[in-house]
Amino acid sequence: MPYRAPVDDIRFILTHVVGFDQLSQTDRFAEATPDTTAQILTEAGKLCEEVLSPLQRSGDTHPARLENGVVHTSPGFAEGYRAIAEGGWTAISAPPDHGGMGLPQTLGMAVNEMLSGACLSLQLCPLLTFGAIEALTHHASADLQALYLPRLISGEWSGTMNLTEPQAGSDVGALRTTAQPNGDGTYAIKGQKIYISWGDGDFLDNVVHLVLARLPDAPAGTKGISLFLVPRNIPDENGAPGARNGVRVVSLEHKMGLHGSPTAVMEYDGATGWMIGAPNKGMAAMFTMMNNARLGVGMQGIGVAQAALTHALAHARDRVQGKTPVQGGSGAIIDHADVRRMLATMRAEVFAARAIALSCAVSIDMQAATGAADWAARAAFLTPIAKAYGTDTGIEVAQTAMQVQGGMGYIEETGAAQFLRDVRVTAIYEGTNGIQAMDLAGRKLMDGGEAAWRLLAEVEQTAEQARPLLPDLAERVWDAAESLRETTEWMLTQDMTQRFAGAVPFLRGWARVLGGQAHLAAALAEGGTGPRTALARVFVDRLLPEHAAALAQARAGADALYALSDDDFAA
Amino acid sequence: MPYRAPVDDIRFILTHVVGFDQLSQTDRFAEATPDTTAQILTEAGKLCEEVLSPLQRSGDTHPARLENGVVHTSPGFAEGYRAIAEGGWTAISAPPDHGGMGLPQTLGMAVNEMLSGACLSLQLCPLLTFGAIEALTHHASADLQALYLPRLISGEWSGTMNLTEPQAGSDVGALRTTAQPNGDGTYAIKGQKIYISWGDGDFLDNVVHLVLARLPDAPAGTKGISLFLVPRNIPDENGAPGARNGVRVVSLEHKMGLHGSPTAVMEYDGATGWMIGAPNKGMAAMFTMMNNARLGVGMQGIGVAQAALTHALAHARDRVQGKTPVQGGSGAIIDHADVRRMLATMRAEVFAARAIALSCAVSIDMQAATGAADWAARAAFLTPIAKAYGTDTGIEVAQTAMQVQGGMGYIEETGAAQFLRDVRVTAIYEGTNGIQAMDLAGRKLMDGGEAAWRLLAEVEQTAEQARPLLPDLAERVWDAAESLRETTEWMLTQDMTQRFAGAVPFLRGWARVLGGQAHLAAALAEGGTGPRTALARVFVDRLLPEHAAALAQARAGADALYALSDDDFAA
Repeated sequence: MPYRAPVDDIRFILTHVVGFDQLSQTDRFAEATPDTTAQILTEAGKLCEEVLSPLQRSGDTHPARLENGVVHTSPGFAEGYRAIAEGGWTAISAPPDHGGMGLPQTLGMAVNEMLSGACLSLQLCPLLTFGAIEALTHHASADLQALYLPRLISGEWSGTMNLTEPQAGSDVGALRTTAQPNGDGTYAIKGQKIYISWGDGDFLDNVVHLVLARLPDAPAGTKGISLFLVPRNIPDENGAPGARNGVRVVSLEHKMGLHGSPTAVMEYDGATGWMIGAPNKGMAAMFTMMNNARLGVGMQGIGVAQAALTHALAHARDRVQGKTPVQGGSGAIIDHADVRRMLATMRAEVFAARAIALSCAVSIDMQAATGAADWAARAAFLTPIAKAYGTDTGIEVAQTAMQVQGGMGYIEETGAAQFLRDVRVTAIYEGTNGIQAMDLAGRKLMDGGEAAWRLLAEVEQTAEQARPLLPDLAERVWDAAESLRETTEWMLTQDMTQRFAGAVPFLRGWARVLGGQAHLAAALAEGGTGPRTALARVFVDRLLPEHAAALAQARAGADALYALSDDDFAA
Repeated sequence: MPYRAPVDDIRFILTHVVGFDQLSQTDRFAEATPDTTAQILTEAGKLCEEVLSPLQRSGDTHPARLENGVVHTSPGFAEGYRAIAEGGWTAISAPPDHGGMGLPQTLGMAVNEMLSGACLSLQLCPLLTFGAIEALTHHASADLQALYLPRLISGEWSGTMNLTEPQAGSDVGALRTTAQPNGDGTYAIKGQKIYISWGDGDFLDNVVHLVLARLPDAPAGTKGISLFLVPRNIPDENGAPGARNGVRVVSLEHKMGLHGSPTAVMEYDGATGWMIGAPNKGMAAMFTMMNNARLGVGMQGIGVAQAALTHALAHARDRVQGKTPVQGGSGAIIDHADVRRMLATMRAEVFAARAIALSCAVSIDMQAATGAADWAARAAFLTPIAKAYGTDTGIEVAQTAMQVQGGMGYIEETGAAQFLRDVRVTAIYEGTNGIQAMDLAGRKLMDGGEAAWRLLAEVEQTAEQARPLLPDLAERVWDAAESLRETTEWMLTQDMTQRFAGAVPFLRGWARVLGGQAHLAAALAEGGTGPRTALARVFVDRLLPEHAAALAQARAGADALYALSDDDFAA
């Protein structure tokens, strides 16, 4: 079953749910007209359906492998990557002065969703490159920008993020890689990094590693971390990839999924690096990459969810089992209420997750266009929700899609299992979903709840607008928002341990309420009758009620968790 | 991380939660004293920890493979199987007249949980053998019993279930395999069966296939299905495996997990078969196997959940990341509230699922011991809940266990991924969890709700008993039971399409309430203070509230699902 790009749904959400038209009213994004948007999405969708989707199984069945220091990539990936690069899709939102299109990140994120749905393993490469572009754009010197940005933006070269070390995962501050000044403005980087996605690949002309390391005598913890650019090949005077740098792939991980994406252990043995940003300010620079990458990973979850849904839908429409319970039904299992429940749930979740993520992206763009702090705060608040809910949705939808297909779903050849195996890591990397939730319940409430109250006011505004047309749905979304406000107020009175004990369900509660708002807005846009209204009813009737249990759990506190001793968790 | 058998938890549940002592007061199970029980469980636990658990990774990394018609099994599986058989663990609850121990099925199920946690791929073989023993015990002629039962009970020979054909999955009635009388009392079986677990294996002296097929001129659908015994090797006059029968393994499936369990496509080419039970009554005989196998599959989910929890707990106690937020904490990530939330949730779910499944098993035994229809109805009602909730718990706990381990959880070598890949199929086979839920909301309410009301009365009785000691917990379990009663009453007024639209959340609601009862009983048994009370608080505070959303969804009905056209599920 080939991938079908959800261009119509994305366009609908942009136009009717997340206020994308605000962007074309700014100077910065005046070119992002509805026509341009439609054209971009359609073109990207075509690439995904025709060129990338056929590579999906190849990545799984022919994993990347390391031989004699060369990372051999999956069959067809080189051509697929070239098609992405030549189409200019690596960085459509990169600044025009270095070859980017200067389009809104919202469009970049929408394109990334489609690339992910078509072939997640390959999409990860340009996604990381885009993160590197962001970091260089905001923090690198003009010289480094001039040398690296055009080649990264064109996709000739790729980028990576090097944070994790064996003893430093969620605790980045524990990293030990060192950077010794060479005396000529460069640094000698020494250490081992793990879990480096696309650490290398045989079709990449050059790989630009962004590496966190410590200067001599740097303070301990995250305050002593600096960011370095370490190219695999040091550019020569013409900017062509020159001498091999002192960095190599030691091994590739054997993972549950994402086999087409080489996950490398990297050894830096005095490799030459250039500092990005100020000494000991590497975390700030890295966060530029990371926030963006977090939203990008949320889009990955949504993309895979969409692909898995399409895959399951094709099966449900095709597979005949038993008598249809429906007069005039197709005779296939899609006629059965429980199968429809699964399909409708998947569709409703994907829509909600997509709307939340694109709303986050619009905030990022509006902040860039207007400089307004409110937009920045809105983006910051929505990012962990978009990441965690997007990836949870990816996993849940892939699970359900497999369930729709019964025994066939468990057989690898059908491809259903790959979606689940591939997408599973998205809830882990770029900060586990637990870390996202703690970010939301901790750091993102440090403004005293301002960003939260503004979002809740938006929800209540949508509910007010919908009340005349859809009073029952509007009422329930309103009530859920009120419960969420109370829980958020409660969070603000608690210390971090109490908050963190309920952080994951707290984030889930936010996703449920914002999802309800998105569905309400969609129903409203079609006048309160039609398929989007039916879908809104599915969400509000069936999924929104979960907010109550999520919020009860969010407020349950830490005491019962610490009343159990460590031994008590065993049976 | 090796497997740790949860012998203490099982014994606690038997003694304090599910009323296992009733059994030793019956004539039939007078020997199932606390001492015998403890000894059986301890011995089985030792086998699982010492002999079977070391085989778990071997099954994954060295899948069963078919070469020149021989199914080569994973390294060590032959020895593991022999240890199971020689210990008498294949059928400790089989009748003594053919070599069984005649112990309660409850103990057999508890042992099966542990076998599953240690090595699911291998456990599936004796589990299916036990299903065959059940079918022969209840439906085969005395001659067939005398020939086959001793060899199946000893584990010399194994059994399989052959239901599914490419066009007949959930719709068993669509099967086409034929049985032609040979004129000598035997039948010639012809057709193809798929998804046959342990269809063959190089260490099996003989394989006894139980095959559903149609007699000439049999009525269409499930009313025209008969059950046949088809041995791989036809026993000679001494009962030794003789001439090869006309049945062979055509191919093995390439599955997401359970690689050590050969899943075969079987070709029957005029194979000689013997009828089990009456002509056209094969479904009834098969249901004897299936009900039992459903509870057994529920135990598989619980077993893997327990193993995954233990695995994650070891990681959480070992892995140091960041500063501990706890005074006097161990410094490992188990000190963090979100990690404790995950561990406590896993532990609370496993306990609840185990208690529900063992309660179901006690009903089966009480029915066998007393012949009372109430016990049969109780077992029938609990079976789909035990199967679906047990396997959902297996999947959810394996997911969470991976999440606790972060990036390492996604690397195959740690084994975390295998739990998830292996257990995933348990929600699909032996009737998908959707089928279980429809069984509950449909067939299991055909008594007008009698069995349901009796179970709810039990819940309310536990709540009453707990009220003096634990008033807040008791009140919430009571209230949840009342909501569940209302939803069950609502179900009874609905047609099947409306019921089936909410069947899966309806079953979930039952699992939440029965889980709450089990935790309450456990807290009560330790006097309302201690680790089981703390765990009960985790369940009642955090997980029980989900019953409300589940029941809201159960009552949401089918209309919104059918308001969407088939096309509307796509984006």
